[in-house]
Amino acid sequence: MEERLQKQMEFILEMDRSKQIGRQTYLHDASRKENDAEHAWHLALMVMLLSEYANTEIDVLKTMEMVLIHDVVEIDAGDTYAYDTVGNSSKREREEKAADRIFSLLPEDQARKLRDLWEEFEAGKTAEAKFANTLDKVQPLMLNDASDGLAWREHGIDRSQVIKRNAKTAEGSETLWEYAKQLIDRNTENGNLKQDR
Amino acid sequence: MEERLQKQMEFILEMDRSKQIGRQTYLHDASRKENDAEHAWHLALMVMLLSEYANTEIDVLKTMEMVLIHDVVEIDAGDTYAYDTVGNSSKREREEKAADRIFSLLPEDQARKLRDLWEEFEAGKTAEAKFANTLDKVQPLMLNDASDGLAWREHGIDRSQVIKRNAKTAEGSETLWEYAKQLIDRNTENGNLKQDR
Repeated sequence: MEERLQKQMEFILEMDRSKQIGRQTYLHDASRKENDAEHAWHLALMVMLLSEYANTEIDVLKTMEMVLIHDVVEIDAGDTYAYDTVGNSSKREREEKAADRIFSLLPEDQARKLRDLWEEFEAGKTAEAKFANTLDKVQPLMLNDASDGLAWREHGIDRSQVIKRNAKTAEGSETLWEYAKQLIDRNTENGNLKQDR
Repeated sequence: MEERLQKQMEFILEMDRSKQIGRQTYLHDASRKENDAEHAWHLALMVMLLSEYANTEIDVLKTMEMVLIHDVVEIDAGDTYAYDTVGNSSKREREEKAADRIFSLLPEDQARKLRDLWEEFEAGKTAEAKFANTLDKVQPLMLNDASDGLAWREHGIDRSQVIKRNAKTAEGSETLWEYAKQLIDRNTENGNLKQDR
Protein backbone atom coordinates (compact mmCIF):
# COMPACT_ATOMS: atom_id res chain seq x y z
CA MET A 1 0.00 0.00 0.00
CA GLU A 2 1.19 3.49 -0.79
CA GLU A 3 2.89 5.19 2.16
CA ARG A 4 0.58 8.20 2.01
CA LEU A 5 -2.59 6.15 2.41
CA GLN A 6 -0.93 4.02 5.10
CA LYS A 7 -0.19 7.15 7.16
CA GLN A 8 -3.70 8.51 6.69
CA MET A 9 -5.25 5.25 7.80
CA GLU A 10 -2.97 5.02 10.81
CA PHE A 11 -4.04 8.51 11.86
CA ILE A 12 -7.73 7.71 11.30
CA LEU A 13 -7.41 4.63 13.48
CA GLU A 14 -5.55 6.60 16.17
CA MET A 15 -8.44 9.08 16.16
CA ASP A 16 -10.69 6.28 17.45
CA ARG A 17 -9.22 7.00 20.89
CA SER A 18 -11.12 10.33 20.97
CA LYS A 19 -14.18 8.18 21.72
CA GLN A 20 -12.50 7.23 24.98
CA ILE A 21 -11.63 10.74 26.18
CA GLY A 22 -14.34 11.66 28.66
CA ARG A 23 -15.63 15.16 29.25
CA GLN A 24 -17.36 16.49 32.35
CA THR A 25 -20.59 17.34 30.52
CA TYR A 26 -23.50 14.94 30.86
CA LEU A 27 -25.78 13.90 27.99
CA HIS A 28 -29.19 15.62 27.90
CA ASP A 29 -30.76 12.96 30.14
CA ALA A 30 -27.81 12.84 32.56
CA SER A 31 -27.40 9.12 31.80
CA ARG A 32 -23.63 9.43 31.38
CA LYS A 33 -20.95 11.96 30.43
CA GLU A 34 -20.13 12.60 26.79
CA ASN A 35 -16.77 12.02 25.13
CA ASP A 36 -14.64 14.11 22.77
CA ALA A 37 -15.77 12.41 19.54
CA GLU A 38 -19.46 12.87 20.38
CA HIS A 39 -18.84 16.48 21.39
CA ALA A 40 -16.98 17.25 18.14
CA TRP A 41 -19.79 15.67 16.08
CA HIS A 42 -22.33 17.78 17.91
CA LEU A 43 -20.33 20.96 17.22
CA ALA A 44 -20.00 20.08 13.52
CA LEU A 45 -23.80 19.73 13.31
CA MET A 46 -24.10 23.13 14.99
CA VAL A 47 -21.76 24.68 12.44
CA MET A 48 -23.98 23.25 9.72
CA LEU A 49 -27.19 24.61 11.24
CA LEU A 50 -26.18 27.81 13.01
CA SER A 51 -23.56 29.47 10.78
CA GLU A 52 -26.14 32.13 9.88
CA TYR A 53 -25.68 33.54 13.41
CA ALA A 54 -21.93 34.17 13.12
CA ASN A 55 -21.16 37.86 13.69
CA THR A 56 -18.97 37.83 10.56
CA GLU A 57 -19.56 35.53 7.60
CA ILE A 58 -17.56 32.33 8.04
CA ASP A 59 -16.10 29.65 5.78
CA VAL A 60 -18.40 26.80 6.83
CA LEU A 61 -16.17 23.95 5.63
CA LYS A 62 -13.12 25.35 7.40
CA THR A 63 -15.09 25.88 10.62
CA MET A 64 -16.47 22.35 10.42
CA GLU A 65 -13.00 20.88 9.95
CA MET A 66 -11.79 22.99 12.86
CA VAL A 67 -14.40 21.69 15.28
CA LEU A 68 -13.95 18.11 14.09
CA ILE A 69 -10.29 18.15 15.22
CA HIS A 70 -10.32 20.82 17.96
CA ASP A 71 -9.98 18.33 20.82
CA VAL A 72 -7.96 15.48 19.31
CA VAL A 73 -4.79 16.50 21.17
CA GLU A 74 -6.64 15.32 24.29
CA ILE A 75 -5.91 11.76 23.14
CA ASP A 76 -2.51 12.34 24.76
CA ALA A 77 -3.14 15.39 26.94
CA GLY A 78 -6.49 14.35 28.45
CA ASP A 79 -9.56 16.54 28.91
CA THR A 80 -9.08 19.40 31.34
CA TYR A 81 -12.30 20.45 33.07
CA ALA A 82 -13.16 24.06 32.32
CA TYR A 83 -13.13 24.96 36.01
CA ASP A 84 -9.94 23.08 36.96
CA THR A 85 -7.45 25.90 37.67
CA VAL A 86 -4.42 23.69 38.29
CA GLY A 87 -5.08 21.52 35.22
CA ASN A 88 -5.52 24.57 33.03
CA SER A 89 -2.16 26.02 34.02
CA SER A 90 -0.28 23.12 32.38
CA LYS A 91 -2.83 22.54 29.61
CA ARG A 92 -1.09 24.43 26.82
CA GLU A 93 2.25 22.66 27.32
CA ARG A 94 0.66 19.19 27.44
CA GLU A 95 -1.40 19.91 24.36
CA GLU A 96 1.53 21.27 22.31
CA LYS A 97 3.44 18.07 22.96
CA ALA A 98 0.38 16.01 22.02
CA ALA A 99 -0.10 17.99 18.81
CA ASP A 100 3.54 17.34 17.85
CA ARG A 101 3.03 13.59 18.05
CA ILE A 102 -0.53 13.22 16.83
CA PHE A 103 -0.57 15.42 13.75
CA SER A 104 2.81 14.12 12.60
CA LEU A 105 1.23 10.73 12.02
CA LEU A 106 -0.24 12.27 8.85
CA PRO A 107 1.49 13.01 5.53
CA GLU A 108 3.25 16.37 5.83
CA ASP A 109 0.69 18.51 3.96
CA GLN A 110 -2.22 17.20 6.04
CA ALA A 111 -0.20 17.33 9.28
CA ARG A 112 0.42 21.03 8.57
CA LYS A 113 -3.21 21.69 7.68
CA LEU A 114 -4.59 20.10 10.85
CA ARG A 115 -1.94 21.67 13.08
CA ASP A 116 -2.75 25.09 11.60
CA LEU A 117 -6.48 24.55 12.12
CA TRP A 118 -5.88 23.56 15.73
CA GLU A 119 -3.57 26.54 16.39
CA GLU A 120 -6.13 28.84 14.76
CA PHE A 121 -8.87 27.48 17.00
CA GLU A 122 -6.69 27.91 20.08
CA ALA A 123 -5.72 31.48 19.14
CA GLY A 124 -9.39 32.40 18.60
CA LYS A 125 -8.63 35.38 16.38
CA THR A 126 -10.27 34.61 13.01
CA ALA A 127 -14.02 34.65 12.34
CA GLU A 128 -14.00 30.85 12.02
CA ALA A 129 -12.09 30.33 15.26
CA LYS A 130 -14.32 32.79 17.13
CA PHE A 131 -17.46 31.03 15.96
CA ALA A 132 -16.01 27.56 16.72
CA ASN A 133 -15.09 28.73 20.22
CA THR A 134 -18.60 30.11 20.71
CA LEU A 135 -20.13 26.75 19.82
CA ASP A 136 -17.62 24.99 22.07
CA LYS A 137 -19.07 27.02 24.96
CA VAL A 138 -22.75 26.95 23.98
CA GLN A 139 -23.01 23.18 23.42
CA PRO A 140 -22.09 22.22 27.01
CA LEU A 141 -24.40 24.98 28.31
CA MET A 142 -27.24 23.34 26.37
CA LEU A 143 -26.42 19.92 27.79
CA ASN A 144 -25.94 21.26 31.30
CA ASP A 145 -29.33 22.95 31.07
CA ALA A 146 -31.01 19.80 29.70
CA SER A 147 -29.45 17.59 32.38
CA ASP A 148 -30.66 19.90 35.15
CA GLY A 149 -27.16 21.23 35.82
CA LEU A 150 -25.83 17.94 37.14
CA ALA A 151 -22.16 18.59 36.27
CA TRP A 152 -22.38 22.12 37.71
CA ARG A 153 -24.04 20.88 40.89
CA GLU A 154 -21.48 18.10 41.31
CA HIS A 155 -18.63 20.60 41.04
CA GLY A 156 -20.37 23.40 42.97
CA ILE A 157 -19.94 25.86 40.10
CA ASP A 158 -21.22 29.39 40.55
CA ARG A 159 -22.65 31.81 38.02
CA SER A 160 -19.60 34.08 37.91
CA GLN A 161 -17.38 31.15 36.88
CA VAL A 162 -19.65 30.42 33.94
CA ILE A 163 -19.82 34.10 32.99
CA LYS A 164 -16.02 34.37 33.17
CA ARG A 165 -15.58 31.26 31.05
CA ASN A 166 -17.92 32.80 28.48
CA ALA A 167 -16.10 36.13 28.32
CA LYS A 168 -15.53 35.72 24.58
CA THR A 169 -18.68 33.81 23.60
CA ALA A 170 -20.29 36.94 22.14
CA GLU A 171 -17.28 37.44 19.84
CA GLY A 172 -18.38 34.55 17.64
CA SER A 173 -22.11 35.22 17.78
CA GLU A 174 -24.09 37.88 19.64
CA THR A 175 -27.26 35.89 18.97
CA LEU A 176 -25.95 32.66 20.46
CA TRP A 177 -24.55 34.53 23.45
CA GLU A 178 -28.02 36.03 24.06
CA TYR A 179 -29.39 32.48 23.95
CA ALA A 180 -26.65 31.24 26.29
CA LYS A 181 -27.34 34.02 28.79
CA GLN A 182 -30.94 32.89 29.07
CA LEU A 183 -29.73 29.40 29.99
CA ILE A 184 -27.30 30.79 32.55
CA ASP A 185 -30.00 32.98 34.10
CA ARG A 186 -32.49 30.12 34.27
CA ASN A 187 -29.95 27.85 35.94
CA THR A 188 -29.00 30.54 38.42
CA GLU A 189 -32.65 31.07 39.32
CA ASN A 190 -33.31 27.36 39.81
CA GLY A 191 -30.15 26.90 41.88
CA ASN A 192 -28.17 24.68 39.50
CA LEU A 193 -25.56 27.43 39.48
CA LYS A 194 -24.71 29.04 42.79
CA GLN A 195 -25.30 32.78 43.16
CA ASP A 196 -22.15 34.83 42.85
CA ARG A 197 -20.06 34.84 45.97
CA MET B 1 -36.44 33.91 21.48
CA GLU B 2 -37.03 33.89 17.75
CA GLU B 3 -38.96 30.83 16.58
CA ARG B 4 -36.32 29.89 14.03
CA LEU B 5 -33.51 29.68 16.59
CA GLN B 6 -35.82 27.87 19.01
CA LYS B 7 -36.49 25.16 16.42
CA GLN B 8 -32.82 24.82 15.55
CA MET B 9 -31.86 24.45 19.19
CA GLU B 10 -34.61 21.90 19.79
CA PHE B 11 -33.30 19.83 16.87
CA ILE B 12 -29.69 20.14 18.08
CA LEU B 13 -30.71 18.91 21.53
CA GLU B 14 -32.73 16.05 20.00
CA MET B 15 -29.59 15.03 18.08
CA ASP B 16 -27.93 14.28 21.44
CA ARG B 17 -29.81 10.98 21.35
CA SER B 18 -27.55 9.79 18.50
CA LYS B 19 -24.94 9.28 21.22
CA GLN B 20 -27.23 6.62 22.66
CA ILE B 21 -27.84 4.65 19.46
CA GLY B 22 -25.47 1.70 19.62
CA ARG B 23 -23.87 0.06 16.61
CA GLN B 24 -22.49 -3.48 16.36
CA THR B 25 -18.93 -2.33 15.61
CA TYR B 26 -16.43 -2.37 18.47
CA LEU B 27 -13.88 0.36 19.09
CA HIS B 28 -10.31 -0.41 17.96
CA ASP B 29 -9.45 -2.04 21.31
CA ALA B 30 -12.73 -3.97 21.57
CA SER B 31 -13.46 -2.19 24.87
CA ARG B 32 -17.06 -1.42 23.88
CA LYS B 33 -19.23 -0.86 20.81
CA GLU B 34 -19.38 2.54 19.16
CA ASN B 35 -22.47 4.69 18.78
CA ASP B 36 -23.93 6.65 15.87
CA ALA B 37 -22.53 10.04 16.88
CA GLU B 38 -19.00 8.68 17.22
CA HIS B 39 -19.32 6.83 13.92
CA ALA B 40 -20.54 9.95 12.09
CA TRP B 41 -17.67 12.00 13.53
CA HIS B 42 -15.20 9.38 12.35
CA LEU B 43 -16.67 9.44 8.83
CA ALA B 44 -16.51 13.25 8.72
CA LEU B 45 -12.80 13.09 9.60
CA MET B 46 -12.36 10.54 6.81
CA VAL B 47 -14.08 12.86 4.32
CA MET B 48 -11.63 15.56 5.37
CA LEU B 49 -8.56 13.37 4.95
CA LEU B 50 -9.45 10.95 2.16
CA SER B 51 -11.46 12.95 -0.38
CA GLU B 52 -8.47 12.78 -2.74
CA TYR B 53 -9.32 9.10 -3.30
CA ALA B 54 -12.87 9.67 -4.55
CA ASN B 55 -13.27 8.27 -8.07
CA THR B 56 -14.93 11.52 -9.15
CA GLU B 57 -14.16 14.88 -7.58
CA ILE B 58 -16.58 15.55 -4.73
CA ASP B 59 -17.98 18.59 -2.95
CA VAL B 60 -16.23 18.07 0.40
CA LEU B 61 -18.58 20.24 2.48
CA LYS B 62 -21.66 18.54 1.10
CA THR B 63 -20.18 15.08 1.70
CA MET B 64 -19.22 16.04 5.22
CA GLU B 65 -22.72 17.31 5.97
CA MET B 66 -24.12 14.12 4.49
CA VAL B 67 -22.09 11.82 6.73
CA LEU B 68 -22.79 13.96 9.80
CA ILE B 69 -26.53 13.33 9.46
CA HIS B 70 -26.63 9.99 7.59
CA ASP B 71 -27.70 7.95 10.61
CA VAL B 72 -29.79 10.39 12.66
CA VAL B 73 -33.06 8.71 11.64
CA GLU B 74 -31.88 5.83 13.83
CA ILE B 75 -32.84 7.96 16.85
CA ASP B 76 -36.35 6.67 16.16
CA ALA B 77 -35.72 3.69 13.86
CA GLY B 78 -32.79 2.14 15.75
CA ASP B 79 -29.59 0.75 14.26
CA THR B 80 -30.09 -2.27 12.04
CA TYR B 81 -27.09 -4.59 11.97
CA ALA B 82 -25.67 -4.94 8.46
CA TYR B 83 -26.20 -8.71 8.51
CA ASP B 84 -29.70 -8.72 10.06
CA THR B 85 -31.92 -9.85 7.15
CA VAL B 86 -35.25 -9.48 8.94
CA GLY B 87 -34.37 -6.06 10.37
CA ASN B 88 -33.23 -4.83 6.98
CA SER B 89 -36.51 -5.77 5.31
CA SER B 90 -38.44 -3.21 7.38
CA LYS B 91 -35.58 -0.70 7.65
CA ARG B 92 -36.63 1.67 4.88
CA GLU B 93 -40.18 2.06 6.17
CA ARG B 94 -39.06 2.66 9.76
CA GLU B 95 -36.47 5.17 8.65
CA GLU B 96 -38.85 7.13 6.38
CA LYS B 97 -41.21 7.59 9.29
CA ALA B 98 -38.33 8.66 11.51
CA ALA B 99 -37.11 11.14 8.90
CA ASP B 100 -40.61 12.68 8.73
CA ARG B 101 -40.59 13.41 12.43
CA ILE B 102 -36.95 14.26 13.05
CA PHE B 103 -36.17 16.62 10.19
CA SER B 104 -39.45 18.46 10.61
CA LEU B 105 -38.22 19.72 13.97
CA LEU B 106 -36.10 22.17 11.95
CA PRO B 107 -37.18 25.36 10.15
CA GLU B 108 -38.55 24.40 6.75
CA ASP B 109 -35.49 25.29 4.64
CA GLN B 110 -33.13 23.30 6.85
CA ALA B 111 -35.60 20.43 7.20
CA ARG B 112 -35.66 20.20 3.40
CA LYS B 113 -31.88 20.43 3.12
CA LEU B 114 -31.21 17.66 5.63
CA ARG B 115 -33.97 15.44 4.27
CA ASP B 116 -32.53 15.84 0.76
CA LEU B 117 -29.02 15.04 1.99
CA TRP B 118 -30.28 11.91 3.72
CA GLU B 119 -32.29 10.79 0.68
CA GLU B 120 -29.27 11.42 -1.52
CA PHE B 121 -27.09 9.31 0.76
CA GLU B 122 -29.66 6.51 0.76
CA ALA B 123 -30.03 6.57 -3.03
CA GLY B 124 -26.24 6.42 -3.48
CA LYS B 125 -26.27 7.84 -7.00
CA THR B 126 -24.23 11.06 -6.82
CA ALA B 127 -20.45 11.24 -6.45
CA GLU B 128 -20.87 12.56 -2.89
CA ALA B 129 -23.31 9.82 -1.91
CA LYS B 130 -21.12 7.12 -3.44
CA PHE B 131 -18.07 8.34 -1.55
CA ALA B 132 -20.03 8.69 1.71
CA ASN B 133 -21.34 5.14 1.31
CA THR B 134 -17.81 3.89 0.65
CA LEU B 135 -16.57 5.46 3.90
CA ASP B 136 -19.60 4.06 5.75
CA LYS B 137 -18.39 0.59 4.75
CA VAL B 138 -14.64 1.11 5.14
CA GLN B 139 -14.74 2.62 8.65
CA PRO B 140 -16.34 -0.45 10.31
CA LEU B 141 -13.93 -2.70 8.36
CA MET B 142 -11.04 -0.76 9.90
CA LEU B 143 -12.48 -1.10 13.39
CA ASN B 144 -13.35 -4.76 12.90
CA ASP B 145 -9.79 -5.41 11.76
CA ALA B 146 -8.30 -3.46 14.69
CA SER B 147 -10.52 -5.24 17.23
CA ASP B 148 -9.50 -8.65 15.88
CA GLY B 149 -12.86 -9.23 14.22
CA LEU B 150 -14.78 -9.46 17.50
CA ALA B 151 -18.15 -8.35 16.08
CA TRP B 152 -17.75 -10.68 13.09
CA ARG B 153 -16.79 -13.60 15.33
CA GLU B 154 -19.70 -12.94 17.69
CA HIS B 155 -22.14 -13.01 14.79
CA GLY B 156 -20.39 -15.79 12.84
CA ILE B 157 -20.07 -13.66 9.72
CA ASP B 158 -18.46 -15.19 6.65
CA ARG B 159 -16.36 -13.59 3.94
CA SER B 160 -19.06 -13.72 1.28
CA GLN B 161 -21.42 -11.69 3.47
CA VAL B 162 -18.82 -8.96 3.80
CA ILE B 163 -18.06 -9.04 0.07
CA LYS B 164 -21.78 -8.83 -0.73
CA ARG B 165 -22.26 -5.92 1.65
CA ASN B 166 -19.37 -4.16 -0.09
CA ALA B 167 -20.74 -4.67 -3.60
CA LYS B 168 -20.75 -0.92 -4.22
CA THR B 169 -17.74 0.14 -2.16
CA ALA B 170 -15.54 0.52 -5.26
CA GLU B 171 -18.10 2.94 -6.76
CA GLY B 172 -17.00 5.67 -4.36
CA SER B 173 -13.29 4.92 -4.40
CA GLU B 174 -11.33 2.19 -6.18
CA THR B 175 -8.34 2.98 -3.93
CA LEU B 176 -10.25 2.58 -0.68
CA TRP B 177 -11.87 -0.61 -1.96
CA GLU B 178 -8.38 -2.02 -2.68
CA TYR B 179 -7.46 -1.14 0.90
CA ALA B 180 -10.66 -2.71 2.23
CA LYS B 181 -10.04 -5.92 0.29
CA GLN B 182 -6.69 -6.32 2.02
CA LEU B 183 -8.45 -6.12 5.39
CA ILE B 184 -11.08 -8.64 4.31
CA ASP B 185 -8.40 -11.03 3.02
CA ARG B 186 -6.34 -10.75 6.19
CA ASN B 187 -9.37 -11.41 8.37
CA THR B 188 -10.36 -14.39 6.27
CA GLU B 189 -6.87 -15.84 6.55
CA ASN B 190 -6.75 -15.41 10.33
CA GLY B 191 -10.23 -16.88 10.77
CA ASN B 192 -12.05 -13.76 12.01
CA LEU B 193 -14.27 -14.17 8.95
CA LYS B 194 -15.44 -17.65 8.09
CA GLN B 195 -14.47 -19.07 4.70
CA ASP B 196 -17.28 -18.93 2.18
CA ARG B 197 -19.84 -21.65 2.61
